[in-house]
Amino acid sequence: MSETDADDHGTEAELRRRRVEGTQRALRAGAGDALVLFPSRNLQYLTGFAESPDERHLLFLVPADGDAAFFAPDLYETQLREETAVAEIRTWSDGEDPVAGVRDLLADCGVRGGHLLVDDTMWATFTQDLRAAAPAASFGLASEVLSELRVRKDAAELDAMRRAAAVADAVVGDLRDLGPDAVGMTEAELSAFIEDRLTERGGSGTSFETIVGSGPNGAKPHHGHGDREIRAGEPIVLDFGTRVDGYPSDQTRTLVFDGEPPARYREVHEVVREAQQAGVAAVGPGVPAEAVDAAAREVIEAAGYGDAFVHRTGHGVGLDVHEEPYAVAGNERELEPGMVLSVEPGIYLPDEFGVRIEDLVVVTEDGCERLNDTDRDWRC
Amino acid sequence: MSETDADDHGTEAELRRRRVEGTQRALRAGAGDALVLFPSRNLQYLTGFAESPDERHLLFLVPADGDAAFFAPDLYETQLREETAVAEIRTWSDGEDPVAGVRDLLADCGVRGGHLLVDDTMWATFTQDLRAAAPAASFGLASEVLSELRVRKDAAELDAMRRAAAVADAVVGDLRDLGPDAVGMTEAELSAFIEDRLTERGGSGTSFETIVGSGPNGAKPHHGHGDREIRAGEPIVLDFGTRVDGYPSDQTRTLVFDGEPPARYREVHEVVREAQQAGVAAVGPGVPAEAVDAAAREVIEAAGYGDAFVHRTGHGVGLDVHEEPYAVAGNERELEPGMVLSVEPGIYLPDEFGVRIEDLVVVTEDGCERLNDTDRDWRC
Repeated sequence: MSETDADDHGTEAELRRRRVEGTQRALRAGAGDALVLFPSRNLQYLTGFAESPDERHLLFLVPADGDAAFFAPDLYETQLREETAVAEIRTWSDGEDPVAGVRDLLADCGVRGGHLLVDDTMWATFTQDLRAAAPAASFGLASEVLSELRVRKDAAELDAMRRAAAVADAVVGDLRDLGPDAVGMTEAELSAFIEDRLTERGGSGTSFETIVGSGPNGAKPHHGHGDREIRAGEPIVLDFGTRVDGYPSDQTRTLVFDGEPPARYREVHEVVREAQQAGVAAVGPGVPAEAVDAAAREVIEAAGYGDAFVHRTGHGVGLDVHEEPYAVAGNERELEPGMVLSVEPGIYLPDEFGVRIEDLVVVTEDGCERLNDTDRDWRC
Repeated sequence: MSETDADDHGTEAELRRRRVEGTQRALRAGAGDALVLFPSRNLQYLTGFAESPDERHLLFLVPADGDAAFFAPDLYETQLREETAVAEIRTWSDGEDPVAGVRDLLADCGVRGGHLLVDDTMWATFTQDLRAAAPAASFGLASEVLSELRVRKDAAELDAMRRAAAVADAVVGDLRDLGPDAVGMTEAELSAFIEDRLTERGGSGTSFETIVGSGPNGAKPHHGHGDREIRAGEPIVLDFGTRVDGYPSDQTRTLVFDGEPPARYREVHEVVREAQQAGVAAVGPGVPAEAVDAAAREVIEAAGYGDAFVHRTGHGVGLDVHEEPYAVAGNERELEPGMVLSVEPGIYLPDEFGVRIEDLVVVTEDGCERLNDTDRDWRC
């Protein structure tokens, strides 16, 4: 989030402070005795610090009562003071024993025992050291507290996600403009084209590995991009994202750049398109997340392709590209205004092709609003 | 590693098989009862599968005896069959309970108790589930076995790292060619220039966040890049890397693109250059890793800047950009032929500037060989 945007919604420091206070209220309400984060989206959410983890111990402790504190390598101190509003920063130097420092930090905050909620993505090397530093503690996951706070997006978050979606939508337009010029490019070259355009249109990096699944590669839902050349008459699954002010975009279109695709493709694409529309139509406040999956799946099953729809219909999106709420069978959680999720049914026919169509939607008071709204047709 | 290179050193599948066998020998020698990996560099090393982790359970179990097995979301099955030589692949679908599947996998391999070595970077959400699935087990880290295997690079690995270093060195040349043209660019623009050039010269992506630390930003060792403009007469810390065949490069130069820097900078740069040379000169077989740190640090301390050298002198580099052996006080581990490490002393003067000079070196039978060898001067 840029300072400019934050000004519209309270200062950034105030926003972060309220989030830490909300965390502490949830801890005191019985969730645990302290939260222990490391470089992660949770840490970014609470403090604004957005580095990737490395092998050095960098922890952020939020006790149920009292001040939150960083324990960090000294080479991060200047950066932490500039980029966060956290006053208590303890540092350690290369060559010192960080586990002893962690032990002291926990002891000083009165949380050497009790129930500690660790970052969901915290590396085993750090959780092992935490267990050594607090042998009497029990452990849970930070998401038990933070996913409740993070799942409903505030105005500044939605604004960032709208702008990220607009950047990605514009690049879908750039891809359509390529049309026949894309034929003969490799998947990797088309991926580089996409990533260049995302940056030029105001995005920052990619929010996940760019997927350019040409022909049979499109039938592998998590294929990234390789050296295969784009051919005329074949479907290309294009799934990519960027970030704006830290928040990601995520949408998919399946395009044919030139020539005529097989008749079966036209049929399958139409089924996926109807399924995606049915999924979006199902989204609204009070609706269980699994109902979105059921609505999309029903269309695909009715068309006889149920076995070829091998994944859930969608996932929540926020600082993490995959987070609550998941649109998956068994998830009875009710959607609420401010939640953002993907709706992305697909059909995958091994050795032939794949089709996936995906938009992000935000739940509103009376239904939902699409963040992506480019043409969902396969024609360029 | 491409198939072409693998042909020179045995097939890729044979190479991976030998690595798994080496892992099992170490387990049987007493290290533990099984290794449990998730998407990580360790997994890439043993199987060639190089995805990033996400929230779905994807585990690779290597028991001390018997066949290794994947437990993976079904949407990865095709990819796992194509990209790895692992025969045993169990799958689970969205909507199923993966923890029950993990429990079955461990039981079938006879390792529900015993000592399990989990991936060092495994997310807490997965280690918590492993603990639930194997409540009688004790836990250690996979690096206890794998870092010994990974620390000495084979011919194919060194070849990939040499080529990655050559790509990055060529981009240092491109930066020098920019000269005065870089003045007025923002750090982010210069970072985009670097990343474009890395790709054009044959690299694949970046191996870590590109650092363009202009003027006072260079004094923050882990500053990435921001909106600050490059000015004439100020030092710019340039630390970036790419990957070739999965293996990374990592080097740093501190350049002045135009104009005359402060006199103090000339002095400090010369100290760092001498320290880096002393560090490289200290590298050789049988030398304790900490001696490399001591050699570089001695030069900087003698010049009166000891307090401004706030990090260790270097780190090992392989599939992970930071791995064993670390050139840090207290690490008595002796260097051996085939190990690759960075030598990167720095001096950081808050609010003024920073200087860091870094090359990768490979330990040889009688000393070391630099993988990077562009001019270490600050002039363009």
